[in-house]
Amino acid sequence: MLQSQLFTKTRKTAPKDEVSKNAELLIRAGFVYKVMAGVYAYTPLGLIILEKIKKIVREEMNAIGGQELIMTSLQKRSTWETTGRWDDEAVDVWFKTKLKDETEIGLAWSHEEAILEMMQQFAESYKDFPISVYQFQTKLRNELRAKSGIMRGREFVMKDMYSLHATEEDCDSYYEKVIEAYKNCFERFGMGSSTFVTFASGGAFTKFSHEFQTICDAGEDVLFVNKDQTVAVNEEVLDDAVSELGIKKEDLEPVKSAEVGNIFKFGTEKSEQMNIFYTDQEGNKKPVYLASYGIGITRVMGVVVEKFADDKGIVWPESIAPFRIHLLSLGVNEKAEELYNEMKAAGIEVLYDNRDKGAGEKFADADLMGMPYQVIIGKRSLESGKAEVKNRATGETEEVMLSELVSRFV
Amino acid sequence: MLQSQLFTKTRKTAPKDEVSKNAELLIRAGFVYKVMAGVYAYTPLGLIILEKIKKIVREEMNAIGGQELIMTSLQKRSTWETTGRWDDEAVDVWFKTKLKDETEIGLAWSHEEAILEMMQQFAESYKDFPISVYQFQTKLRNELRAKSGIMRGREFVMKDMYSLHATEEDCDSYYEKVIEAYKNCFERFGMGSSTFVTFASGGAFTKFSHEFQTICDAGEDVLFVNKDQTVAVNEEVLDDAVSELGIKKEDLEPVKSAEVGNIFKFGTEKSEQMNIFYTDQEGNKKPVYLASYGIGITRVMGVVVEKFADDKGIVWPESIAPFRIHLLSLGVNEKAEELYNEMKAAGIEVLYDNRDKGAGEKFADADLMGMPYQVIIGKRSLESGKAEVKNRATGETEEVMLSELVSRFV
Repeated sequence: MLQSQLFTKTRKTAPKDEVSKNAELLIRAGFVYKVMAGVYAYTPLGLIILEKIKKIVREEMNAIGGQELIMTSLQKRSTWETTGRWDDEAVDVWFKTKLKDETEIGLAWSHEEAILEMMQQFAESYKDFPISVYQFQTKLRNELRAKSGIMRGREFVMKDMYSLHATEEDCDSYYEKVIEAYKNCFERFGMGSSTFVTFASGGAFTKFSHEFQTICDAGEDVLFVNKDQTVAVNEEVLDDAVSELGIKKEDLEPVKSAEVGNIFKFGTEKSEQMNIFYTDQEGNKKPVYLASYGIGITRVMGVVVEKFADDKGIVWPESIAPFRIHLLSLGVNEKAEELYNEMKAAGIEVLYDNRDKGAGEKFADADLMGMPYQVIIGKRSLESGKAEVKNRATGETEEVMLSELVSRFV
Repeated sequence: MLQSQLFTKTRKTAPKDEVSKNAELLIRAGFVYKVMAGVYAYTPLGLIILEKIKKIVREEMNAIGGQELIMTSLQKRSTWETTGRWDDEAVDVWFKTKLKDETEIGLAWSHEEAILEMMQQFAESYKDFPISVYQFQTKLRNELRAKSGIMRGREFVMKDMYSLHATEEDCDSYYEKVIEAYKNCFERFGMGSSTFVTFASGGAFTKFSHEFQTICDAGEDVLFVNKDQTVAVNEEVLDDAVSELGIKKEDLEPVKSAEVGNIFKFGTEKSEQMNIFYTDQEGNKKPVYLASYGIGITRVMGVVVEKFADDKGIVWPESIAPFRIHLLSLGVNEKAEELYNEMKAAGIEVLYDNRDKGAGEKFADADLMGMPYQVIIGKRSLESGKAEVKNRATGETEEVMLSELVSRFV
């Protein structure tokens, strides 16, 4: 893409009311636009990143038999009343509104009850299970505070998956598959080694649920990890975990972390509350087992910024960078355009800074925007037949023959 | 895809409260699920159709320089107050809700004001124009009545595009480009010949706006079309159009139609109200020209169902069908699976009915679900070496050698 065609521009400063590092950098680089606290629009560059994160998650969810659908934001009161989750005391993040006839409706912050209610229409027999469905849906949550940028939004994109099973064994075994699929996702986002499957608070059905927590200074959680990094426990269940799991407190060290995923077994609790039963092989009515699994898509984007950014700006991992290469032309647009066209023809994702700006501004903008590789060509390049290639993450530079540039990145 | 893997099932009847043909058929075929009046979830099969419609629109918008982004559902009161469109008297479809601190916020039903406010940050000079951005966004509109199925939802997907220009000439010329791009879209949806660029009511800036209206019995509008189909006028502006455009009323014939797209020039009205100016070549402050362009993605899906369905069920045009082929196995699953795998390997989109059901049920389901081609194989096929291929739209059948089936559809 030609940088001159982007309507976004980099900024030297973020809005005064922005207190989070991720939003500050994303706004300055032109990836997001702040509408109000916790509510951000995604510009064309920001949207590419979200779509790349979604693509990775979609591939991993499809690989374990997940089927993508899309549920609704508008929710009926009756759907949530049977489980007690309509009540603002029980769930304190509801946004609610009214139809013209004064009927109160809610705006979805999650979809367990909605999925169960829908599945009642389709799944009646043991033969209809298991069912695993997921969506990328814009969730609305009325957070009291929203000071973590896109890491905790009042409006945000979540991948939420729901699996329904006839038996506990089947539910348990699918739950383990999802853990592996989630690990793959975080690995592919470039944060596998710092993301832990963590014991967290459970519900009526299980003692613990599992969170995926990524070590991150901007995180809102505290994680206790043992020295060989095989066990991680959320602070909120530390004492329980120590007594139940036979871990020694002195082996655990606290780190700040951000929750990037959450998986949860509901057992048959919700289907019993909602009267959702299937018929088993012997003709008996049995309640349905439910588990739900979330990954915050916009949150992942925020955590990536927080974790990898340096004092010059954002550093995108290759897997989710909007472009792999940022091509900077220092006064040699004719040659640069030729290279740009060659790269595009070879299928390389490249943002070409063809703007009429000085070298200093182009370098600063490229560092701020964080594409994995900067390819810099100027008058000296044309003389020597070489371009400078800079690795944004390491800062290392190398000289590459212009004639070998494209093959270097194919 | 294997039909046995779908969690959706066909139904003989629609919910009792469903009064529209499109929703009735879509629910019976398992493409949508009704949450409440005007609020529908899209199952995996329904979502494929939406994504195919979006892909066509995306290609056409990109071809005229549109850049995709995503705005927010949550909207500030202040954004809409300056133009008078926060007021429920002026805009009667707002859903509104409140933050924890009692601040009233709105849920987006359109985005003109939000886009202008955002662009103020990026576009200051005449050099920054034109800008054309679009999104596929879930709109919420508090419709008093919602009896047209997915043709008029309280929650629906819209492609809304906004173009900003420094001059009226530039705005006018882009507006014409969008008309052509829209024509391409409707052509590709298979409804080009029955869709008209229609004179409709304008605003403060122009006498008329333009709607794209598709002839459709379930439509809510009445269109007056002349005999050679070169002029179409919405009933609401018939008298004005007759006097202003020099058309004779007796040359026009009324037809029922559904609005599938709407394009609208706002001129500089909104930017003047919102105080959004750019600096021209001479250093003068000038207001920005705005036009907006919508296509109802979910509505298009509904209109397609209404227009093409017959008494047996839905008939999808090839361009947006979830699968091109519905492969029906009548007791010969081994051979059918072989064919299915060959078709998939050849890149053919195929839904394979591998269910343990009788021929009658399979035929009825395939007709209801509406894939463009049914490929039927049974014991006689194996004997004769031929499959029956049925064109869903025309009902015509032909016998095709099994050995030639794949190449027939590549």
